[in-house]
Amino acid sequence: MTGNQDLLTDAGLLSPVRAGTPVEAEVCDLAWLQAMLDAESALARAQARLGTLPRSAAAAIAAAAYTDRLDLRELALAARETANPVVGLVRALTALVAEHDPAAAEYVHRGSTSQDIFDTAMMLVSVRALRIVRSDLARVARALADLAAEHRDTPMAGRTLALHAVPTTFGLKAAGWRQSVLDADRRLAELLAGLPVSLGGAAGTLAGYLEYARLDGAWAVRDPGEYPDELVRVFAEETGLARPVLPWHALRTPVADLAAALALTAGVLGKIAVDVQSMARTEVGEVAEPAGAAGRGASSAMPHKRNPVLSTLIRSAALQVPVLAAGLTQCLVAEDERSAGVWHAEWQLLRECLRLVGGAAHTAVELAEGLEVRPGRMRGNLDLTGSQIVSERIAAVLAPQLGKAAARQLLTRASAEAAASGRPLPEFLAAAPEVAKRFTPEEVAAWCDPTAYPGAAGQLVDRALRVGGPEPA
Amino acid sequence: MTGNQDLLTDAGLLSPVRAGTPVEAEVCDLAWLQAMLDAESALARAQARLGTLPRSAAAAIAAAAYTDRLDLRELALAARETANPVVGLVRALTALVAEHDPAAAEYVHRGSTSQDIFDTAMMLVSVRALRIVRSDLARVARALADLAAEHRDTPMAGRTLALHAVPTTFGLKAAGWRQSVLDADRRLAELLAGLPVSLGGAAGTLAGYLEYARLDGAWAVRDPGEYPDELVRVFAEETGLARPVLPWHALRTPVADLAAALALTAGVLGKIAVDVQSMARTEVGEVAEPAGAAGRGASSAMPHKRNPVLSTLIRSAALQVPVLAAGLTQCLVAEDERSAGVWHAEWQLLRECLRLVGGAAHTAVELAEGLEVRPGRMRGNLDLTGSQIVSERIAAVLAPQLGKAAARQLLTRASAEAAASGRPLPEFLAAAPEVAKRFTPEEVAAWCDPTAYPGAAGQLVDRALRVGGPEPA
Amino acid sequence: MTGNQDLLTDAGLLSPVRAGTPVEAEVCDLAWLQAMLDAESALARAQARLGTLPRSAAAAIAAAAYTDRLDLRELALAARETANPVVGLVRALTALVAEHDPAAAEYVHRGSTSQDIFDTAMMLVSVRALRIVRSDLARVARALADLAAEHRDTPMAGRTLALHAVPTTFGLKAAGWRQSVLDADRRLAELLAGLPVSLGGAAGTLAGYLEYARLDGAWAVRDPGEYPDELVRVFAEETGLARPVLPWHALRTPVADLAAALALTAGVLGKIAVDVQSMARTEVGEVAEPAGAAGRGASSAMPHKRNPVLSTLIRSAALQVPVLAAGLTQCLVAEDERSAGVWHAEWQLLRECLRLVGGAAHTAVELAEGLEVRPGRMRGNLDLTGSQIVSERIAAVLAPQLGKAAARQLLTRASAEAAASGRPLPEFLAAAPEVAKRFTPEEVAAWCDPTAYPGAAGQLVDRALRVGGPEPA
Amino acid sequence: MTGNQDLLTDAGLLSPVRAGTPVEAEVCDLAWLQAMLDAESALARAQARLGTLPRSAAAAIAAAAYTDRLDLRELALAARETANPVVGLVRALTALVAEHDPAAAEYVHRGSTSQDIFDTAMMLVSVRALRIVRSDLARVARALADLAAEHRDTPMAGRTLALHAVPTTFGLKAAGWRQSVLDADRRLAELLAGLPVSLGGAAGTLAGYLEYARLDGAWAVRDPGEYPDELVRVFAEETGLARPVLPWHALRTPVADLAAALALTAGVLGKIAVDVQSMARTEVGEVAEPAGAAGRGASSAMPHKRNPVLSTLIRSAALQVPVLAAGLTQCLVAEDERSAGVWHAEWQLLRECLRLVGGAAHTAVELAEGLEVRPGRMRGNLDLTGSQIVSERIAAVLAPQLGKAAARQLLTRASAEAAASGRPLPEFLAAAPEVAKRFTPEEVAAWCDPTAYPGAAGQLVDRALRVGGPEPA
Repeated sequence: MTGNQDLLTDAGLLSPVRAGTPVEAEVCDLAWLQAMLDAESALARAQARLGTLPRSAAAAIAAAAYTDRLDLRELALAARETANPVVGLVRALTALVAEHDPAAAEYVHRGSTSQDIFDTAMMLVSVRALRIVRSDLARVARALADLAAEHRDTPMAGRTLALHAVPTTFGLKAAGWRQSVLDADRRLAELLAGLPVSLGGAAGTLAGYLEYARLDGAWAVRDPGEYPDELVRVFAEETGLARPVLPWHALRTPVADLAAALALTAGVLGKIAVDVQSMARTEVGEVAEPAGAAGRGASSAMPHKRNPVLSTLIRSAALQVPVLAAGLTQCLVAEDERSAGVWHAEWQLLRECLRLVGGAAHTAVELAEGLEVRPGRMRGNLDLTGSQIVSERIAAVLAPQLGKAAARQLLTRASAEAAASGRPLPEFLAAAPEVAKRFTPEEVAAWCDPTAYPGAAGQLVDRALRVGGPEPA
Repeated sequence: MTGNQDLLTDAGLLSPVRAGTPVEAEVCDLAWLQAMLDAESALARAQARLGTLPRSAAAAIAAAAYTDRLDLRELALAARETANPVVGLVRALTALVAEHDPAAAEYVHRGSTSQDIFDTAMMLVSVRALRIVRSDLARVARALADLAAEHRDTPMAGRTLALHAVPTTFGLKAAGWRQSVLDADRRLAELLAGLPVSLGGAAGTLAGYLEYARLDGAWAVRDPGEYPDELVRVFAEETGLARPVLPWHALRTPVADLAAALALTAGVLGKIAVDVQSMARTEVGEVAEPAGAAGRGASSAMPHKRNPVLSTLIRSAALQVPVLAAGLTQCLVAEDERSAGVWHAEWQLLRECLRLVGGAAHTAVELAEGLEVRPGRMRGNLDLTGSQIVSERIAAVLAPQLGKAAARQLLTRASAEAAASGRPLPEFLAAAPEVAKRFTPEEVAAWCDPTAYPGAAGQLVDRALRVGGPEPA
Repeated sequence: MTGNQDLLTDAGLLSPVRAGTPVEAEVCDLAWLQAMLDAESALARAQARLGTLPRSAAAAIAAAAYTDRLDLRELALAARETANPVVGLVRALTALVAEHDPAAAEYVHRGSTSQDIFDTAMMLVSVRALRIVRSDLARVARALADLAAEHRDTPMAGRTLALHAVPTTFGLKAAGWRQSVLDADRRLAELLAGLPVSLGGAAGTLAGYLEYARLDGAWAVRDPGEYPDELVRVFAEETGLARPVLPWHALRTPVADLAAALALTAGVLGKIAVDVQSMARTEVGEVAEPAGAAGRGASSAMPHKRNPVLSTLIRSAALQVPVLAAGLTQCLVAEDERSAGVWHAEWQLLRECLRLVGGAAHTAVELAEGLEVRPGRMRGNLDLTGSQIVSERIAAVLAPQLGKAAARQLLTRASAEAAASGRPLPEFLAAAPEVAKRFTPEEVAAWCDPTAYPGAAGQLVDRALRVGGPEPA
Repeated sequence: MTGNQDLLTDAGLLSPVRAGTPVEAEVCDLAWLQAMLDAESALARAQARLGTLPRSAAAAIAAAAYTDRLDLRELALAARETANPVVGLVRALTALVAEHDPAAAEYVHRGSTSQDIFDTAMMLVSVRALRIVRSDLARVARALADLAAEHRDTPMAGRTLALHAVPTTFGLKAAGWRQSVLDADRRLAELLAGLPVSLGGAAGTLAGYLEYARLDGAWAVRDPGEYPDELVRVFAEETGLARPVLPWHALRTPVADLAAALALTAGVLGKIAVDVQSMARTEVGEVAEPAGAAGRGASSAMPHKRNPVLSTLIRSAALQVPVLAAGLTQCLVAEDERSAGVWHAEWQLLRECLRLVGGAAHTAVELAEGLEVRPGRMRGNLDLTGSQIVSERIAAVLAPQLGKAAARQLLTRASAEAAASGRPLPEFLAAAPEVAKRFTPEEVAAWCDPTAYPGAAGQLVDRALRVGGPEPA
């Protein structure tokens, strides 16, 4: 190990769900730092476009606004002095700009406040991370659509409260997973369209920006009343973010929305994971995870196992995100124009949510694209209870003929006889006089067939694949 | 106390934020029971419309589907036997129907499953509760709009990290509160439009419904492949709920969406509450809560106090809802076609969220409509630091003239002198030679005036009131 | 339904895990009300014992301090005026006392503050609820001890990451469950010994109590400096609660401790529940829940199912309590001598935690005492993978002889051949030349026997049953 | 920036509460890696002590068990293959050992399983971090004891529901803070004494360890039944951790206990932080944070501010830890002998809790040791309401003389007159005929004096400093 020895850093060791996945590069400390620099740079360009800052200064600031000459750790430590990393960053950036253009250095962070830069950066980081998440969700949805289509009519046991209930199909299960993924993706898409730039100045009135515009003069030729609106609009353009109705330093809807959409995304992926695990159990064996690269799923102690590691990783994220998201939601309750500690609690929580969801989505691509489906085991399990899995249907058929109570009694008795003798249930049912006089043995066998009671599973799959909406971008 | 002595019930004693508010009637146990009966009744009507159940049976079921002859406690106890209250309710409803129309009793809950009824009821309860919440949010937003307009130019100290930062206006603060309320309301409106009916049958394939339709025959004349779609469509119509793409027994997006919107609503109201408390502090005194009915806010021990009880109640809800909502979000991770315990964890959590938010919204109406605003105290507090609250501006004005460092030194020195002497800061600034040669004392006094540095507060208020979107319905 | 029709109450419909369990009576609204009256009564008695309140007044207060003449709903509604239910209760109690002894009415709540009464009541309710919880945990632990002893040597598959790992015994599993239950019980026992009375007066200085003692005079003969200490001591005695070092209105360690112990208890019961569900799955079938009263576990749609409802109910509680407990823990961060909303957020959260845990513990008694264990199915499942479940052992035996890599290759090859042919693995292993020259077929068969690799399971069971500590009281 | 450019790491940028504090070194990825190596090394030494592994092999393993030749990032990435970092680490360690002692390489991780190593490491990391936390809490408690003693009799306004209630003293407030810190420290001390080593083997039966012991032979001379017990005992000795009753792979009491104690610690520090902020508000001004190193608390936009950054940082941690801890507590509900995802969710959550608490405790040392207390401002605020802060006392004195109702009316009237005239309340009270005939003006002034109504504050401080228990180690 070289280089990082002295750094007290995290490299993903405790969070394999995201280690090495693309989201990491977008949410790591350096990415946040770069996003803050991007915000400073965009602010200078916006001011220059409105004539309240020299274009050359904006260019000098933009040219210096890169992380490669900054010391990340030093900036992290400096953040303790002011409770946020922007003050130190502005100092460092000012020094860098001054090296080449001392006059331009005056214009760094002109009229601004830490939270404008930090929150804008937070939105930029979120947008960048969510784009990756959406692209992975699109792959997951496509893979699940393929599974749903391929297994539209593959019968398997539907399970409720841990037990066989009535038959379903694997196609319907896969279609359901996909539907939830599309739900999550739709919310992420809405979010991406609306994440706003932050611009408020020291207490959300834009006063500093206005004062400098007044002093620096160029705007004076126009209606000063239009400047605030214009500045926000142009800053939004420069960052590619949306324009908020009001400064939102202490009005945290965007963060709560992020929390909600990320928790939903984690949850729908977690649902897939626990279903895969339920079906992968040794006794069930209906699916297996892709073997992947050499050794995926290998156990340190048990050479025979191929552990469902992908679903395990996804589930580990799905367990963490909801509580992290609750932490973010609680930060809505922030006093004053900027709270003393509530804003500061958001940062790491949001980053973790983004990173876990990004990791889970990427892991879900591997899982969905490589899932090994075993129709034979599904069929075998369907038969395990000897037609009891269609007892709902048998009762429905018999009840109008025999009355509900009598039908249930017959079914109970015949099931017991079948279990005791090891012979099939339809035989005992067909032999019962009250049945025999109404139905042929073939008819009885037909409604006792677990593969012949799919309900509307096929139509539901068709509908879901048709109306589920366009694939996420 | 009579009657309820033997009942081990909750009557709101520990949750004053909602005791006696309108939401209670919509989410109490009886309301859920009625909603389940409404779901059974709508299901029978839907089946009758499609010809798979006699119209007379649907009418008999609808006629019996009222809580007044049911024993709530008995049903609650019976729910332990099956882990949900529907099985016992169906038994009781069947008996009630049989009293007047024994043939119709056969058709109660025809082809259905507990979760279809329960989840549909959960959506009905949510819709009914959210309508009340929205109507209260509309009143809150209107009251806040009035405050924002009235105090568009009322200066007060903007506060960050617990300290005076730069001036703002109370109008901007009120406009910000309103904006957040509109944010929450918009999400609730979207939710209300989309909360879906639940219809899936035993394992989400609609098999039971189809089987009974086949056996009961009337639908047979038409394309059987259309029946499932039609049944869901007509059931949705009968309940007034939306139509889901797929059965969602184990795909809980609607519940996660509810959790998210309710947490946001609680949070934005909580934000108002903590701001009111921050301003109501004895030393600050910028607002006071409405005195309301005799005794509101009275202390048992301290006759002089008028406690900010409304904001206290709202804040108590805002602290609870995010964690309850996280509990709901975690329930996305539910295995199989119906989980063994995860679904069951949702019910009480969701009801509490609805009830707390409903109570908080109603309480916020009282708070917003009656808030006593004290511009005099705001003005007094603005002056507390002797122009230091506009030091951002002073620095901005002086820096281009003196250089940043010299400007800051001067400001620091003059502030110290002002503090020591008890005389106003502008005097010392104006007397400084480097200032005196550039600015008149009147000019210095102008930029030292805390009421003359509102930034764009006024324009922001105008913009928010203009583009904030139509008032919620 | 009569009587409760007009009450907007909860009767447990949405929380079957606790409906009808003994904890309900101890934590319902009336129980809290009675506990507040108990606190008022104890306070009067304590003051009387110290001579600062007439004994006859204390007796009159004690005689009136019963809920039967109070209107619960009216008190709940009145709580909105003051943000807590004590003010209204004191008014009502004073009126009741005045009916029989007008002079005594002056002494109700003498020198006190709402929080002293409410928090003392909260501790009384907690103590009463926890005693029930502990008595149920004792029954659970006993039943699990019996299962552990009975199945000390019953082999079953140990499962990790959803798959068979190596064999274990059901006795060890049951012993582990019991150990966790004992862990939780130990924490509850510690809690019960230390839950403190609350006595601080308006702002935690005991000033009101002292002032009245001074004015009422009797204490004057003794050292006034001893009065505060004595009052707290005697009040603690009268309530049976512990004595705190300091008033704890805003120092909420007792509430955080309750939250932690209740979350642990819910969690250890939830662990049992998910294990039962894992083993009860149709394909696994190693345990079944007790059938209980007629109909337990019946499905509304599927006559053949006997759902694991007890574990479902327990799990539903285990999913809710941790987030509710987090809500309580966050209330540690309460500003000032009494916060405006943080204290108020605790009440309902704590009651729900107590009630869910009480319900879960009672449900766990039924589950543990009635669990149906199926050693035959355990054995059958052990054989499912044809000795692969002991591959750890086979590798251990062969590696020293053949080298790790060669041993693993042999095992992999033989496993594939066994799977392909359907014949037992030991046959293929024994036939391999490198094995055959070192081991007899009997030796090979011995280390391939899944029932002959229990590790120290038996000794661990013995140890746990021996050192697990005395059964909870 | 050099070296760490390519690493997608966190260096604390988003978590200034802990950046640069001592806890970081104990919980960073490298520290966890080293702790895993320590566990491997201790296991080998334990096996060697019992004669089942050559002493030379144990020595070779111990010699190689250092992070300096491992690639952290590579190991983090490898963890995705197996869902935990131990498998890759064992591979890497084995290779390192083999370089110097190929025979010893066979004995690395002998009979073990990933979770034994990881969980033991998790406990080692926790112990190391908690020792630092405790040492910082000790300093906090000492500083608070000094403040309590120094300000035993410094009067200030007691505040409830955001308003002045009755007087208290700053000493009592500081004593309360200290008491809570001692509460938290006591729980940490108990934890530290009991955090257990993890040793269970593949499924918690110790089978692998036993099998290797049997094969390696040395133990054979003794009673094999004693080996498991001995191995756990000696491994515990080698690590310095406690010995569990049973393997706890899926019985997570230690993790839940950690979560609870850390949440309590975060909460009690958060309580101090919000109290400091409440008192530091510009209008209140009763305390100020230490200025610390140059620039502490400086604002980027507002030169005059000295922000309360320490309390801000502490509060940011206190808001995060409870929800993270809830995430840990939910992991109690882990199925089977090792869950598929639940265990994996604990790691990062626990590390964050440790790190935030460690950072908060260290920050609290700075805050408590440097807090600037302003008795003058406290006194000034006490006088703000003109004796209304002692209205409890005035009412208590007058009520026995005039009757409760008349006393309250007089007080209300006199307060209004005082407020209107700007003259002191006692004047108006003393002038009232019903008062004048009973009390001298001096007596009236005495009970209207806010500094003369401290209740038992002084005695409570004495008691807390006396019985608060020994200072934490």
